[in-house]
Amino acid sequence: MQKIIGVMGAGEVNEEEKQEAFELGKLLAENNWVLLTGGRDSGVMDAASQGARSAGGMTIGVIPDSDLRRLSEAVELPIVTGMGGARNAINVLSSHVVIACRGQSLGTISEIAFALKAAKPVILLNCIPECVALFKKIAGERVLLAESPEEAVQLTKELLPF
Amino acid sequence: MQKIIGVMGAGEVNEEEKQEAFELGKLLAENNWVLLTGGRDSGVMDAASQGARSAGGMTIGVIPDSDLRRLSEAVELPIVTGMGGARNAINVLSSHVVIACRGQSLGTISEIAFALKAAKPVILLNCIPECVALFKKIAGERVLLAESPEEAVQLTKELLPF
Amino acid sequence: MQKIIGVMGAGEVNEEEKQEAFELGKLLAENNWVLLTGGRDSGVMDAASQGARSAGGMTIGVIPDSDLRRLSEAVELPIVTGMGGARNAINVLSSHVVIACRGQSLGTISEIAFALKAAKPVILLNCIPECVALFKKIAGERVLLAESPEEAVQLTKELLPF
Amino acid sequence: MQKIIGVMGAGEVNEEEKQEAFELGKLLAENNWVLLTGGRDSGVMDAASQGARSAGGMTIGVIPDSDLRRLSEAVELPIVTGMGGARNAINVLSSHVVIACRGQSLGTISEIAFALKAAKPVILLNCIPECVALFKKIAGERVLLAESPEEAVQLTKELLPF
Repeated sequence: MQKIIGVMGAGEVNEEEKQEAFELGKLLAENNWVLLTGGRDSGVMDAASQGARSAGGMTIGVIPDSDLRRLSEAVELPIVTGMGGARNAINVLSSHVVIACRGQSLGTISEIAFALKAAKPVILLNCIPECVALFKKIAGERVLLAESPEEAVQLTKELLPF
Repeated sequence: MQKIIGVMGAGEVNEEEKQEAFELGKLLAENNWVLLTGGRDSGVMDAASQGARSAGGMTIGVIPDSDLRRLSEAVELPIVTGMGGARNAINVLSSHVVIACRGQSLGTISEIAFALKAAKPVILLNCIPECVALFKKIAGERVLLAESPEEAVQLTKELLPF
Repeated sequence: MQKIIGVMGAGEVNEEEKQEAFELGKLLAENNWVLLTGGRDSGVMDAASQGARSAGGMTIGVIPDSDLRRLSEAVELPIVTGMGGARNAINVLSSHVVIACRGQSLGTISEIAFALKAAKPVILLNCIPECVALFKKIAGERVLLAESPEEAVQLTKELLPF
Repeated sequence: MQKIIGVMGAGEVNEEEKQEAFELGKLLAENNWVLLTGGRDSGVMDAASQGARSAGGMTIGVIPDSDLRRLSEAVELPIVTGMGGARNAINVLSSHVVIACRGQSLGTISEIAFALKAAKPVILLNCIPECVALFKKIAGERVLLAESPEEAVQLTKELLPF
């Protein structure tokens, strides 16, 4: 079984966030982990998938739509749910570790909540202070913080049981 | 079509929170609205449903399980999803207004996020400051605050388009 | 807890099928059962709901969409799933007895299969011979046959444990 | 993007059916297609995945459970849905071509119905006559028949648009 790392983040991001997600996807691929995202052709989903592909990594995209029209071209393996936001639950259940970028989008927040509820390790990468404060309050040390893609990947290494 | 008000909250609550949820359910029923909860036999789900039934109201429970073993006995109309936490998306899509109690459980947080994403009116009833701060930051004036069941019901009246 | 009877059938039907579904919905309501359908404004879903309402019955519609644009106006309680065909599983899990009309639509066939898998009692009302033959082959006496709404309702009475 | 071929079949099979599914999975892998199944450690799901792995192919398993306890060890990429039978909709939406084995299990029948509804090409491999008759009646030439894994793979080649 492959190790699947879920990267969650907004569908709309600025240039800096896009580069961060690209770098994160690239580093995950360099560690031979499979990247799982929400699969769409925008934001963190697309940028992280592009990064992973740039390093020859494998990319899964669990899309909310019932067709491929809004699929990122960097997704190799689209899982087509036709379930809208309910697919966020699948994203995190399918990931060994969940990395949430920035934490300022509603979809990402639902994914952090689902991941913690499912007892998945969660890393908050440069999340806004309000997001960090809420999930630290609820889940304490189960929530890890990273300030760079490198740090997120280092934490992931320590979390994986192998 | 009936007006459906969703009440979201933790599966484990203390006595004070239970009474608050009971009172809220009762007031909603007195306004002839249908109560929708997550349907289980514990916490806010059960207490709000008990309150609504005490005033002769109608109660829907959208349960995560595939059977009725953990159904609140105060739920008249169980919707059985067999979908675990993914049913949280259904809870909020099916509600005209969403009232979130306390905001300290992960399920409730996912529901607030889904509700705002679906452009539903959201009322935070006595939510913890960290929860209020995060969702106010992201959604601003679309998030309303209430400090009592009475206030939540008053806001609901103003929100309903009829 | 109310008794919920699920009526499944095609989104496109001819006049005879529409009248059959209307009559079925009416009879179910006269027995004080709640009607559950797929909720849309066409076919068996709409006709059965209209029938139930004509007799003052309660109607639930579990719709595949994420909004109410295609909701039957005879549905009092819309459950909004945003899950497309996957909501067919919810339809049958939420019904004490499932009545499938005609059995010539793909959605209906998926619902008969799900219902039998979930060990729900299933009544095939005037289903095409090919549909009857397949499910009789697989599920034997668990599949009941009716040739009129009256007969389907009589069978439902015998099936309900009260 | 990879080509994903979905193989659907019963969770309980006899030795002959198991060998057929193994052979089918092996042939799909030899054509460099990705195999998608329901992912569990039994029946067609497990046998087809074992076959694909024996030829070095990639295997996705979309499991109904919320954990990996019943995962086939031949699945490399588990997609964990926690949604029970509703995940059958995801299986077929995610497949470019759907191959249904034997057609005598309820889950498989729901998947054939969903696949045809989603306008996916469907191949019935040695399906029981009652299954063939029903879906031929409804979907006509959109349903293809195969009597061996080799024939199913040949039909798949012709169906794929590349």
